[in-house]
Amino acid sequence: MSGVTGSVPDSMRACVLHQPRDLRLEERAAPRPERGEVVVRVRSVGVCGSDVHYYEHGRIGDFVVRQPLVLGHEASGDIVATGPGVPADRIGERVAIEPGFPCRSCDQCRHGRYNLCPDIAFFGTPPVDGALCDYVRVPADFAHPIPDALSYDAAGLLEPLSVGIWANRKAGTVPGGSVLIAGAGPIGLVTAQIARAMGATEVVVTDIGAERLGVAAELGATGTVLAGAESTGTGFDAFVDCSGAAPAIDAGIRAVRPAGTAVLVGMGADRLTLPLGVLQNREINLTGTFRYANTWPAAIALASSGAIRLDRMVTGHFGLDETESALLAGADPRHIKSVVTLGG
Amino acid sequence: MSGVTGSVPDSMRACVLHQPRDLRLEERAAPRPERGEVVVRVRSVGVCGSDVHYYEHGRIGDFVVRQPLVLGHEASGDIVATGPGVPADRIGERVAIEPGFPCRSCDQCRHGRYNLCPDIAFFGTPPVDGALCDYVRVPADFAHPIPDALSYDAAGLLEPLSVGIWANRKAGTVPGGSVLIAGAGPIGLVTAQIARAMGATEVVVTDIGAERLGVAAELGATGTVLAGAESTGTGFDAFVDCSGAAPAIDAGIRAVRPAGTAVLVGMGADRLTLPLGVLQNREINLTGTFRYANTWPAAIALASSGAIRLDRMVTGHFGLDETESALLAGADPRHIKSVVTLGG
Amino acid sequence: MSGVTGSVPDSMRACVLHQPRDLRLEERAAPRPERGEVVVRVRSVGVCGSDVHYYEHGRIGDFVVRQPLVLGHEASGDIVATGPGVPADRIGERVAIEPGFPCRSCDQCRHGRYNLCPDIAFFGTPPVDGALCDYVRVPADFAHPIPDALSYDAAGLLEPLSVGIWANRKAGTVPGGSVLIAGAGPIGLVTAQIARAMGATEVVVTDIGAERLGVAAELGATGTVLAGAESTGTGFDAFVDCSGAAPAIDAGIRAVRPAGTAVLVGMGADRLTLPLGVLQNREINLTGTFRYANTWPAAIALASSGAIRLDRMVTGHFGLDETESALLAGADPRHIKSVVTLGG
Amino acid sequence: MSGVTGSVPDSMRACVLHQPRDLRLEERAAPRPERGEVVVRVRSVGVCGSDVHYYEHGRIGDFVVRQPLVLGHEASGDIVATGPGVPADRIGERVAIEPGFPCRSCDQCRHGRYNLCPDIAFFGTPPVDGALCDYVRVPADFAHPIPDALSYDAAGLLEPLSVGIWANRKAGTVPGGSVLIAGAGPIGLVTAQIARAMGATEVVVTDIGAERLGVAAELGATGTVLAGAESTGTGFDAFVDCSGAAPAIDAGIRAVRPAGTAVLVGMGADRLTLPLGVLQNREINLTGTFRYANTWPAAIALASSGAIRLDRMVTGHFGLDETESALLAGADPRHIKSVVTLGG
Repeated sequence: MSGVTGSVPDSMRACVLHQPRDLRLEERAAPRPERGEVVVRVRSVGVCGSDVHYYEHGRIGDFVVRQPLVLGHEASGDIVATGPGVPADRIGERVAIEPGFPCRSCDQCRHGRYNLCPDIAFFGTPPVDGALCDYVRVPADFAHPIPDALSYDAAGLLEPLSVGIWANRKAGTVPGGSVLIAGAGPIGLVTAQIARAMGATEVVVTDIGAERLGVAAELGATGTVLAGAESTGTGFDAFVDCSGAAPAIDAGIRAVRPAGTAVLVGMGADRLTLPLGVLQNREINLTGTFRYANTWPAAIALASSGAIRLDRMVTGHFGLDETESALLAGADPRHIKSVVTLGG
Repeated sequence: MSGVTGSVPDSMRACVLHQPRDLRLEERAAPRPERGEVVVRVRSVGVCGSDVHYYEHGRIGDFVVRQPLVLGHEASGDIVATGPGVPADRIGERVAIEPGFPCRSCDQCRHGRYNLCPDIAFFGTPPVDGALCDYVRVPADFAHPIPDALSYDAAGLLEPLSVGIWANRKAGTVPGGSVLIAGAGPIGLVTAQIARAMGATEVVVTDIGAERLGVAAELGATGTVLAGAESTGTGFDAFVDCSGAAPAIDAGIRAVRPAGTAVLVGMGADRLTLPLGVLQNREINLTGTFRYANTWPAAIALASSGAIRLDRMVTGHFGLDETESALLAGADPRHIKSVVTLGG
Repeated sequence: MSGVTGSVPDSMRACVLHQPRDLRLEERAAPRPERGEVVVRVRSVGVCGSDVHYYEHGRIGDFVVRQPLVLGHEASGDIVATGPGVPADRIGERVAIEPGFPCRSCDQCRHGRYNLCPDIAFFGTPPVDGALCDYVRVPADFAHPIPDALSYDAAGLLEPLSVGIWANRKAGTVPGGSVLIAGAGPIGLVTAQIARAMGATEVVVTDIGAERLGVAAELGATGTVLAGAESTGTGFDAFVDCSGAAPAIDAGIRAVRPAGTAVLVGMGADRLTLPLGVLQNREINLTGTFRYANTWPAAIALASSGAIRLDRMVTGHFGLDETESALLAGADPRHIKSVVTLGG
Repeated sequence: MSGVTGSVPDSMRACVLHQPRDLRLEERAAPRPERGEVVVRVRSVGVCGSDVHYYEHGRIGDFVVRQPLVLGHEASGDIVATGPGVPADRIGERVAIEPGFPCRSCDQCRHGRYNLCPDIAFFGTPPVDGALCDYVRVPADFAHPIPDALSYDAAGLLEPLSVGIWANRKAGTVPGGSVLIAGAGPIGLVTAQIARAMGATEVVVTDIGAERLGVAAELGATGTVLAGAESTGTGFDAFVDCSGAAPAIDAGIRAVRPAGTAVLVGMGADRLTLPLGVLQNREINLTGTFRYANTWPAAIALASSGAIRLDRMVTGHFGLDETESALLAGADPRHIKSVVTLGG
């Protein structure tokens, strides 16, 4: 296509899921940038719980892997080609990839809530291929330039960080405020870090795993509570669920002060029994989150400033040919986040 | 007490609930105004579903009638006496009474969310006596002056109207927007009227009673749906539950568009199973309402402007000695709201 | 281009401004729809004060007519052709045109504030041609379908109505609230109507012309004040300036209650002296408006519901060859809005 | 009075302003607590620019010292007596004093905006005496308990910290965001610290004094700019003026991005010429601040957490008999904040 600058090889490696637990490293045609797009040489891809879930079950709710699928949506890399309408001098930029591309013209997009676009194409969500491959093409404005100070790994992990930013925006976290967070997995850990970065002075994290609570404390939680063992206290300004566990959600909502907020990030059951009387009598605002919108600039600024420690969350590095091991690493209790490293 | 102006008789009539279904008209000492208070000669008291519930069951949730209780909290009347610190020229004012008196110094009060004050004293809620009597004393700023155009009945019904205003504030009703309302009882009817007054152009009301839906249509609903019989449509900006019925709440939440709002006004079960997946994937904001705050000025302005028809909702007038009949009037399917008339 | 459906003539008439007061009816090539676009057969174009200003002065601030320019941005018509990616069955739709087309990828667009897009192309603003011609092409989602009940004239006037909606959103107009509006021109009149439609019960309009104040009263203003002659009262929740007159702005801000809002819509001087002490001591929120975003759906719903009377504002109809007369009609004190009618 | 617990001497020392530059240390009757009040033994009082202004000019705007006045409103101390309705076990509490006492019943108070109460009584603002004396009485909920970790000096300086919190709330400071602050006096310094504590990653402070800019950098500003000498950059999310200087305000507003915010904290002229075109075209939200509301709990939490360094701002300690020296200390360019120490 005329207007394309830079170069991309004809073919590339891709890690393709054919069936549950049937992952194959294959050779595929490499992408070419269309109008308004760039092609990124992938350098780091974090492994998310949803990747693991697709790998093990071949589906998440209504999203079913019906054709071979490339997983991965926590990605960073270098721009190697630009399509028509994109300045050629972007070639060479180190970028973090925002992995969901909305239609830009529906009512949700026009209001800036593009995460709710019904036609969004999201990396590694059937039938859209993801980033566990050598090259991906993305709209130019979804490839966010990052400063040198940010590692490729950290740049990929701006994706889960965005989940934590979005959760805190919904929670209305305020300086001097208090937040209760259920779950000390990667999302709980970034949510806690962001809550501290927004000035919350009481950030209590609960989990069933003592090791993960230790990491939460190391990353800034002001209190940690072994789920079920002790009380978390009450009167929190906000509760953020990153566990998906019904008892944690019930207890969390009860721990919120009147006019406080409860944000349900964790993917749990389709239906849930909630303490309605508590919600009504305290006028608690409850909402869920579905990905995020307009978070990368803040994520980059915060991660670059040192306020957020993303590299600390990486507990294992793998090659693209070791992706299966990366997906299975969660069996280790010390595991937090696997990263697949490419290129370089 | 020095500083008191005006006069109040020594004794008065009061309609007192002793036990479930044991209501007695008794002679009691009439109140005297303390600092910052006025005494109001009661003229009209609307009967609320909660009054009926106390009459029949002697309790609502944790609120138990343990000692003789005067019911009634939808009241209006004339100021007949003023306490120290209140201008004497308020005597003679026609007023609507806001029936919950907060502490004014707790964290919720200081933030303007005085409906959530843990120490609020609310008319007709055990152990606080209500307005089904000849005289009540209230803080001067909770006796809101009303224009001549507003009847005493309408002034009393500013209380349920406030519930509707509060529900619409929580719903974020916007001009040109759409609201689905479950329940065409008094609260559903005022909620629908307020939604229209705020410019919502699609206001659909559902109920199990065809007669009440007729009143909803008469008062401005743009659509009415017999619950269970037909679909309400989808894509509503907001859903407001005024029914307390679990199936209506479930269906209502599913009818909300992404990033829309669900407000649960109806008092229902303590626990409720909700469509969590819908809430999360659409990022629906769900909240409950507990009474209201700062609604009387708006309620007075709207009712006076003719935008809201409160008198249309009155389907029966009773004397104070006929209060029991007023409480039992709900058996008639055409019944909407009973009013007890005093004085005059 | 493949993927185009429908037909458009090769050439069309266009009313072209060459120099101040040099307006020519010319033959031009008619547009063809590109990807995601439609071509609209124009039926009605309202004349805005900015059109008049370009006609008389050849510029507005930094926007200078350096090459021949088609004016007009308050337009409606029928879809006659669709480009690739647009459903062909949209041909025949009656539509209102939202006349500013943003880039959809800058930070402002991504946040839903597309009116602030630095690369927006706006009809009739140099160097972008406007709608005073037979055919225009627009992005498919900026051609909003309208119901039969809405006239082409009213559909064109959804553009100034949008200015009024945006102003009221910024003003935070609430039901039972009060709004002071300076200026009873077209923008002041729609702003007043929208304020009423949002439930404001006190809407006071000021102007220097008694005739226009009469129209304001007819369209729903609860009070009208001849500027300079009398006081407007004080304690307004919001002040909206649609006059651009410094004394009106100063007086308007002083008439706002503490924690109220002042919205400056009127295009006035580049610099303005404001009562800073009043702004600070009352914590008044002051802002300006620049066009609007996401207003057409609400505008269509409100105009269709009968809550807003747009046709009442049309005080003159003109053919495309009479555009100059339409631009000069403002000399008549009874003039509110000229409309140029095409096609049909 | 019955219900009073604790003891207060009959008389006390007070530093009284009789005329501009006529300050006298006098013996006065010590206060007794009324219902809902406590008496505080004052331990530390920060000196504010407004104290200096009253001392030098005898007035600030409409507030004129017409009778002898005790200055001082940045105060902390120990509760020594409680009035009726206040738990006696509060005696002995170390407290920070919130120095403005609202009526609690006006429309502003009921909405939680009690700083805008027209009847507020504010320490050291004519005709209300302030805290430069041994004992003061305050409503119990305006004496905020502080943890041991907080010094009396820091507790007094929660008052200017509150100004900074309020300014940042109005500014809408967000994590990863940018704030430009004009003025590196005490208010500018706390505003910058709070902006950082809320997660702003770019906080640029301007001033005419290089020494003060050094302190700003030490306390967390990411950039400092000598006013007039260099450009501050553009595209800030928010501008907060703490200088009161017209050129700084003009430049600051121009440095704000579209849809950004400008907050004018500094007390300047009654009237100010603003860049209206910039405000309108960028839809900048401009507001002023008048004191603060509901800031002490957050201020205490932040100062206790170590996120804010208040003691660093104290550049001089004085006895009550040295108050005049404290008021004159501003002549030293290294001066930031004088504190008067009592008791202990």
